[in-house]
Amino acid sequence: MNNGGFLHEQLVTEDIGEEIFAFVAEIYPICRSITGRGVRETLRAIGAHIKLEVHEVPTGTAVFDWVIPREWNIREAYIRNERGEKVLDFAQSNLHVMSYSVPVQQRISLAQLKQHVYTLPDQPDLIPYRTSYYAEDWAFCMPHRLLESLRDETYEVFIDSSLTDGYLTYGEYLHQGETEEEFLLSAHVCHPSLANDNCSGVALLTHLAKRMAGLRTRYSYRFLFAPGTIGAITWLARNEEHSQRIKHGLIISMVGDGGGPTYKKSRRGSTTIDRAVVHTIRHSGLTPTVLDFSPYGYDERQYCSPGFNLPVGLFQRSKFGEIPQYHTSADNLDFIAPNNLALSYRLIAETLDVVENDAVYCSTMPKCEPQLGRRGLYGMVGGDKNAAAANMAMLWILNLSDGLHSLLDIAERANLPFAVIRRTAQLLQHNGLLAICSDANPTMV
Amino acid sequence: MNNGGFLHEQLVTEDIGEEIFAFVAEIYPICRSITGRGVRETLRAIGAHIKLEVHEVPTGTAVFDWVIPREWNIREAYIRNERGEKVLDFAQSNLHVMSYSVPVQQRISLAQLKQHVYTLPDQPDLIPYRTSYYAEDWAFCMPHRLLESLRDETYEVFIDSSLTDGYLTYGEYLHQGETEEEFLLSAHVCHPSLANDNCSGVALLTHLAKRMAGLRTRYSYRFLFAPGTIGAITWLARNEEHSQRIKHGLIISMVGDGGGPTYKKSRRGSTTIDRAVVHTIRHSGLTPTVLDFSPYGYDERQYCSPGFNLPVGLFQRSKFGEIPQYHTSADNLDFIAPNNLALSYRLIAETLDVVENDAVYCSTMPKCEPQLGRRGLYGMVGGDKNAAAANMAMLWILNLSDGLHSLLDIAERANLPFAVIRRTAQLLQHNGLLAICSDANPTMV
Amino acid sequence: MNNGGFLHEQLVTEDIGEEIFAFVAEIYPICRSITGRGVRETLRAIGAHIKLEVHEVPTGTAVFDWVIPREWNIREAYIRNERGEKVLDFAQSNLHVMSYSVPVQQRISLAQLKQHVYTLPDQPDLIPYRTSYYAEDWAFCMPHRLLESLRDETYEVFIDSSLTDGYLTYGEYLHQGETEEEFLLSAHVCHPSLANDNCSGVALLTHLAKRMAGLRTRYSYRFLFAPGTIGAITWLARNEEHSQRIKHGLIISMVGDGGGPTYKKSRRGSTTIDRAVVHTIRHSGLTPTVLDFSPYGYDERQYCSPGFNLPVGLFQRSKFGEIPQYHTSADNLDFIAPNNLALSYRLIAETLDVVENDAVYCSTMPKCEPQLGRRGLYGMVGGDKNAAAANMAMLWILNLSDGLHSLLDIAERANLPFAVIRRTAQLLQHNGLLAICSDANPTMV
Repeated sequence: MNNGGFLHEQLVTEDIGEEIFAFVAEIYPICRSITGRGVRETLRAIGAHIKLEVHEVPTGTAVFDWVIPREWNIREAYIRNERGEKVLDFAQSNLHVMSYSVPVQQRISLAQLKQHVYTLPDQPDLIPYRTSYYAEDWAFCMPHRLLESLRDETYEVFIDSSLTDGYLTYGEYLHQGETEEEFLLSAHVCHPSLANDNCSGVALLTHLAKRMAGLRTRYSYRFLFAPGTIGAITWLARNEEHSQRIKHGLIISMVGDGGGPTYKKSRRGSTTIDRAVVHTIRHSGLTPTVLDFSPYGYDERQYCSPGFNLPVGLFQRSKFGEIPQYHTSADNLDFIAPNNLALSYRLIAETLDVVENDAVYCSTMPKCEPQLGRRGLYGMVGGDKNAAAANMAMLWILNLSDGLHSLLDIAERANLPFAVIRRTAQLLQHNGLLAICSDANPTMV
Repeated sequence: MNNGGFLHEQLVTEDIGEEIFAFVAEIYPICRSITGRGVRETLRAIGAHIKLEVHEVPTGTAVFDWVIPREWNIREAYIRNERGEKVLDFAQSNLHVMSYSVPVQQRISLAQLKQHVYTLPDQPDLIPYRTSYYAEDWAFCMPHRLLESLRDETYEVFIDSSLTDGYLTYGEYLHQGETEEEFLLSAHVCHPSLANDNCSGVALLTHLAKRMAGLRTRYSYRFLFAPGTIGAITWLARNEEHSQRIKHGLIISMVGDGGGPTYKKSRRGSTTIDRAVVHTIRHSGLTPTVLDFSPYGYDERQYCSPGFNLPVGLFQRSKFGEIPQYHTSADNLDFIAPNNLALSYRLIAETLDVVENDAVYCSTMPKCEPQLGRRGLYGMVGGDKNAAAANMAMLWILNLSDGLHSLLDIAERANLPFAVIRRTAQLLQHNGLLAICSDANPTMV
Repeated sequence: MNNGGFLHEQLVTEDIGEEIFAFVAEIYPICRSITGRGVRETLRAIGAHIKLEVHEVPTGTAVFDWVIPREWNIREAYIRNERGEKVLDFAQSNLHVMSYSVPVQQRISLAQLKQHVYTLPDQPDLIPYRTSYYAEDWAFCMPHRLLESLRDETYEVFIDSSLTDGYLTYGEYLHQGETEEEFLLSAHVCHPSLANDNCSGVALLTHLAKRMAGLRTRYSYRFLFAPGTIGAITWLARNEEHSQRIKHGLIISMVGDGGGPTYKKSRRGSTTIDRAVVHTIRHSGLTPTVLDFSPYGYDERQYCSPGFNLPVGLFQRSKFGEIPQYHTSADNLDFIAPNNLALSYRLIAETLDVVENDAVYCSTMPKCEPQLGRRGLYGMVGGDKNAAAANMAMLWILNLSDGLHSLLDIAERANLPFAVIRRTAQLLQHNGLLAICSDANPTMV
């Protein structure tokens, strides 16, 4: 057992929420897509905090059933009316152009323009976020009120974009632990100016990786910053064998709003990561929304495809798709807050502590209870306000440490926070009442 | 996978409810018992629709712990008062005489008569249905009001019945499928003029067998028309080894009223037939009454006795014994309706489609998701109002087709109708994304 | 199967509640602790009813992680004010002195006295019960009102106790059954004048053992009367191998109040004793409070320590610690009642009958139902008000007696009292329809 402090105590700082928020604000303006300069610029920003390894995968490369698409970049775009006024300008919001729009320069009627406009009639002031990665098309996205205000005249539409052979870009960072077994933490970097989805996840993981530097851990932690779907597929295709080292994993997205927390379980449904996240949230006084796995969502879809079936779940605050700000211009910096980011960060850090320190021990005196009083173990917690919990923790650990129950099993059975169980187990181990099981390979259940 | 249409689409016709009702009306007047001419007449009527094989088993034949009883037949019966008026006449209702009543011709007092009369004091206008197969006795059944109206005088009681060495008669029909594995469908034919219990079941199965003729099926379908209890025991005794071919089975009774649907599970409790019936009813927008197996009920008792333990359940509308019309003269043609019969028929036909087409497939691209868009699989359902369900069905099938989950497993997990899962699986198979598992014997769970 | 009467019918007498109450009243005044003359006197009283084997284990003997402490005895104790009046006298209540108080004779101020006084401010009229077995100290326990009434003057405190090398004393009694497999019944004998906790348990087990004398049983019944914790640990240390004979066990405490019944399950959680107690209580028309095992409570803690993990549960009426009388002078003879003791006794006796007679049988006619009517088995229960239950019991037993289900399994599945299942199974066995399974070792599930 790591007798040092708790991992989350080492990872959480007072100003962590502000730091993450500042980094969100820094990368929020960048126009990202699944390829292109926006992704590279974002990875450079991450690289200012951690030693990121950036990979460039050429257009045309086969990755399982998919092919790396052409690289998309955009410089300028607008709609101009007959008086030469820009009624819409990409420079004001990168949501204004559908991602992967092909270049266009035409004079068209309002009726023709409407064929290439997306709005949200029910949310008339918001710009929707739209993409067309795999079908060649172009479109503008705008508030419905703007569309309704347009006069029936001729418009100049201009999109100065390019679709060329290039690269898909992603970054990864490995915190080397004592073992080669890995904990995957992944955030998608393909969305443009959407603060929660997923500047928040990118920023949280960047700072988590940064804080982890220098800390001794049991697992190696792999941080992955890649475009959604195609990025995860690319990583898995290039790391097919290596992926078997992943013993736990979390997809992190939308962690800056005040909803949830939401946890979507891995396909296996009751792996350590699934239990650790739910346990951590519950013992933080919160009620998690726990979702069974489904094949719709984020990159857990790829990690949980049947050929991999890895223990990877999804951590969010509000559930994707269930908030009005989702995939609109309302997902901006006002929608997220430092304290929300800090809570998300702390829950993830505590989850890491559970996974790091979960282990199976054996009572050294399995026959009847040991005499705790003689060792001062009852008395020593007498003045502690958590005394009752600590006493029960001792009794539970001694009773269940039979080589079949891990500390997390015991925490769940005792309905006590893992941290209490872990701290108490250390105390018992220090007093010679708990030890690594002499049986070389106790069964972990 | 059968790429033809759905079995239930081939089996259900617009006027099926009317057809079944007409056949109920045809066989309703016949006086049936567990043996005798009424059973033969009923089997002849069935034989007008399907090529029924009729079996005659002699009185005295041992069938497991039982012995085929003497054959009972009845020609005439009445009670006459002192003025020669028939106060009760068997010709008006075959419920008036207790089934298996021995012959009698006596002049007796009202007090003596009352020793041989059954009524329903709580339902004073109805004639009860009573039997005494294995204890020699005679009795009349009448409305309680009639009994109360009888004057204290002498009555002539006359029952012209016979109990003689003869036969127990039953009929069976086999729809030969591609395999020797069988689906048993059985209805009891021993009740006299009770429309729901069980002219309805007999008529439904007759027309199901008739419609099935010429259809290619995976299973062979065995339709059994036999008296309750003794008939099932006789069939099992004569087909002891053969019974092991039964992979699924349903007892069909009381399918013409508007209650339920009720499904009583097989003794095993979670076989394919148990899950298929419940799934089908739920996805028809109905809430089934699902009963655990108990050793009281219909012929499932025999098929589910421990020495056979076959996967045979009971399908009904209202649960037996829980409706006031049960086993009374109120179970007449007014109590049932064509639309009820049609719904029962459709639910059974859809259940057959589930069982026929349930199978385990394997995704041909188990590592990450295949690119559905490239194959037009996302787009092709875009205009479909069931598009969302179809898209989710694709993702679920691809995610769970790992050789461990059958289509029914997937339908249950995805909470989508089996028909949607099956149709989508055909589409995926057609596109090369789904195939018979290369592993010769994938485990069916 | 034991074709004799039911064990509980042989064990329960009309006046059993009064008899147990009388014995409670007899041993209630004795000042008991975990060692000393009070325990010996209590065991002598038990020995007047059953042939008790008394063990004396010397001070200093190691028992697992513990050591037998010095023996404590007390003759006299009081607090006298300046006028020589005894404001508190041990002769009036043995709760007045903290158990294991060292001897003291001093003149002290009220302030100094208060350092050695326990009261219950929220229950100001009651004397609390306190112990200090393993830390040398002395203290008085008194009503809070008494403490508040004491003037600020000098008091003489006097405790004439002794802590000397001696013995830990416990008693056991074995009812020899047909097999060496044992059923353990244990009550703690270390509490002073507390009627419910645990004079009630001691008295109930004494009379149960007494009534059992001469009865033929399958199991051997070991009755243990020992001090809590250290007594159970001592017995287990001296009977480490022998303990493996224990196939079922109950700790009995606080069985005289009107609460509950409460059953705390063994660590294994679903052993026969766990199911038998809960089944018995439920079919007595009561709703048990069923608690999962936790490592806090009575001597089940020791029997359920991981190195033993015996199937031993705890039977109580009110749950310990959840009633205001718990560990106070209000736990006196007024708090308990003969009818409560009688009900507790009966529930335990019925539980014994379940455990004694639970067994796996096989239907001799597993293929289809046997013809019960021919054997008069349907008819014979016709006039019985329990006829319907008996008929269903017959059908359930015949259906489930496949070598895989015990009578308790069947009783639970059929939701019928074990006594009905057992009686009906005897009837079926008598009629040749049920037998010991020919397979030598049918699996008990």
